[in-house]
Formats: sequence, structure tokens, C-alpha cells
Amino acid sequence: MIKNRYEGKFIVFEGLDGSGKSTQAGLLAKKMNKNSIKSHKTFEPTQYLIGGLIRSFLANDWKSSPDCLQLLFAADRAYHLEKEIFPALKKRINVVCDRYFFSSFAYGALDCDLDWLIKANDNFLLPDLTIILKSDPDICMKRMAKERFSVELFEKVGKLQKVWENYLRLVERFKSEADIRVINGDRPVPEIFEEVEKIIAGKKIDGWKL
Amino acid sequence: MIKNRYEGKFIVFEGLDGSGKSTQAGLLAKKMNKNSIKSHKTFEPTQYLIGGLIRSFLANDWKSSPDCLQLLFAADRAYHLEKEIFPALKKRINVVCDRYFFSSFAYGALDCDLDWLIKANDNFLLPDLTIILKSDPDICMKRMAKERFSVELFEKVGKLQKVWENYLRLVERFKSEADIRVINGDRPVPEIFEEVEKIIAGKKIDGWKL
Repeated sequence: MIKNRYEGKFIVFEGLDGSGKSTQAGLLAKKMNKNSIKSHKTFEPTQYLIGGLIRSFLANDWKSSPDCLQLLFAADRAYHLEKEIFPALKKRINVVCDRYFFSSFAYGALDCDLDWLIKANDNFLLPDLTIILKSDPDICMKRMAKERFSVELFEKVGKLQKVWENYLRLVERFKSEADIRVINGDRPVPEIFEEVEKIIAGKKIDGWKL
Repeated sequence: MIKNRYEGKFIVFEGLDGSGKSTQAGLLAKKMNKNSIKSHKTFEPTQYLIGGLIRSFLANDWKSSPDCLQLLFAADRAYHLEKEIFPALKKRINVVCDRYFFSSFAYGALDCDLDWLIKANDNFLLPDLTIILKSDPDICMKRMAKERFSVELFEKVGKLQKVWENYLRLVERFKSEADIRVINGDRPVPEIFEEVEKIIAGKKIDGWKL
């Protein structure tokens, strides 16, 4: 993995579908902008060509092997980095990203070899900070059923439980090289965001005020 | 890499663009069918979704990083194996493929780390036989200029020379696990095919006659 050498920080939110990570990513980007700190909110899979293929796959429009899907996720990430993330960081813009390679590892390891997955993602940028929202899979499922038009491939309670266990394994595996925080996502949104703000305060971002 | 456990053989033709490998692949498939040996001719990048993205990339319709392109090649290969190659081999149909992962390695190593490329392709099927056509880059370029509507990204003489050197390195690297033959492609088509036929005769394919 590559370390970030730019002044803009690369902050990633991770967690199960329905864990509220998109909400927190949005709140953080908004708060940064309010503090006149340049920020750019983005997400994976992207809304570009390869991201579209992935969404179609997840919606069962076409099928292939789990390896094929994971290689597409990695290709989409390479595109995302080159097209959006690196250009922003170079301009001192902080990037707040909803999902990144830990998602590929945690979800992908359900069907693929984890070491292979990590190797395929080996040339990519390591986030300066990854915040993982811990949320009960049952609660995640209920949130999704309520809010979304369709429930996609990975979104079954039993699977989500395994994905969560994979997240915890990844925290252990990457703790020496990456700053990863696991926080309780089963609380009211403002309470979670208070904790996010405190974590960000420790990252020394110019202009950051609580 | 995975070894082929099916009765159908997986035969790959490799070489520079314009080296005549597609012609030889076609002649082999035709000869097999003439001998009532079931065969299926195919090629990479595929004509499916991801293969289309790759062709658009090579035609400069869109741009990204070399890593992104190589991950797409690998994803396309995963799709190809699952959709076409494995189903044929399972039915005892011999698969004759124009380009496979040695192409990704030889061309991709111009811009990407070779070990990473090999690792990304690590879960794929090893061909039973790979025939690499050795052809002078200048001659390849002239053939392409004559026959093709457009000349794509990789097709410059200096680059082709480096790609050829990469092919030779790959032969050295894979010689203990893969059956790879380098033959002279700068001869009349029937003369090359005679050599191809002799090589195939050594592979013990049921029903094969010279």
C-alpha cells in the first residue's frame, strides 16, 4: 500500500450496508466545508464506467465469478484514485470516502482468498484514517428494507454477520500500518457524529474546529 | 495458477500484434474440426462487457491508469474462464485461445510491476500448451498498417521490442510449470502451421491426425 504524501487527508468510512456510514461521511464533509476546510465527498463503487458494471452485477443484471467481481472493484478503485482522489489530495482538498478497500476485503473474503484480495489492491493509497461503524446486522437490514428500493447481493443477515467478523480481522491485520477506529454505530446520528468529530480533531487538519 | 483437470485441452497462441497468431489459432481450430475433434476458438480481450471496456480504453475512448487497465484484463479473463473456457473444457471441447495471461504479463509489465500482475492472475487456469510466435516487430507493424483500420495503444515498434523481451523472460520464469514453445513466425503461414501441427501431435489429443 502507498502512504499519502499530500496535504489533503484521505478519510474513509466503513461498515455494513445500512450502518449509517454514508450519513456520517456526509456530515463530516458538510462540517468541514462549514469550517472553510476544503473537502470532497465520494464513494465506492464509483458512478463511472466500471462502477456501473459493478452495480449491475450486484443488482443481478449479469453474473460472473466472485474473482471477476473483486477484480472489477479493484479496477474501479484504480480509476477512482486516478480520476478523483489523487487530484483532490494534490489540491489540498480532504477526501471523505464512503467505502474503500476494506469493504472489498471484508465482503470479498466471503468468497475469495483474502491474501489474494489484498495483493490485488497492493498498489493503492492507504487512508490516513478509517472509521468503521459497528452496527447490529439486524438493525442494518431493517434500515435498508425501509430506505431502499432494492436489497442487493450481499445484504442478508447471516452474511452481514460474517462480513462484520472480517472487518474485525482486518483491524487486527492492518493496525500497525493504518489508523483504524471502530465506533458504535447503533446510537443516534448526532451522538455518533460527536465521536467522529473528536477523532478528526486528533488528525491535525488545518482549520478544524469542534 | 490452476492446472487443467478436464479432458479438453486449453491451447493458447501468443505473440506480438501482427505476428500471425490469430491466423494460426484459426487454422488449428479448423484442422481439429476437420479431424472431428471438438474445438472452440476464442480470444482475449473478450467480446463481452469488460472486453468492450478494454477495447474502448485501447482505442483511447477513455483513459485511466495502467493498473486499472490490467485489473480490467484480469476481470475480463475471470469472466472468460467462467463463461466460455471452463464450460467448453468440461464438455471435452478443446479450447484454442488467441492471447491469454502471458499477453497481460508481457504488455502489462511495460508499465506495471510484473510480480503484482502475476499475483492478480494467480487464480486462473494454466494453459496445457502455449505457442508463442516470434516475429520481427517491424514486420508486425507493417502487417498491421496494411490490414487494420486503426493501430492501437501498444502498437509502436520500440514498445513491441520490449514486449518481445518480456515474452522471453516469461518463458524462462514459467518453464517449470507450463509447456511453452517459441516458434519462428516470420515464415509462410503453411510452414508455421506444419510446426504447430507437430507440436499438437505431441500433446496426445484423441483423434488428432497430421
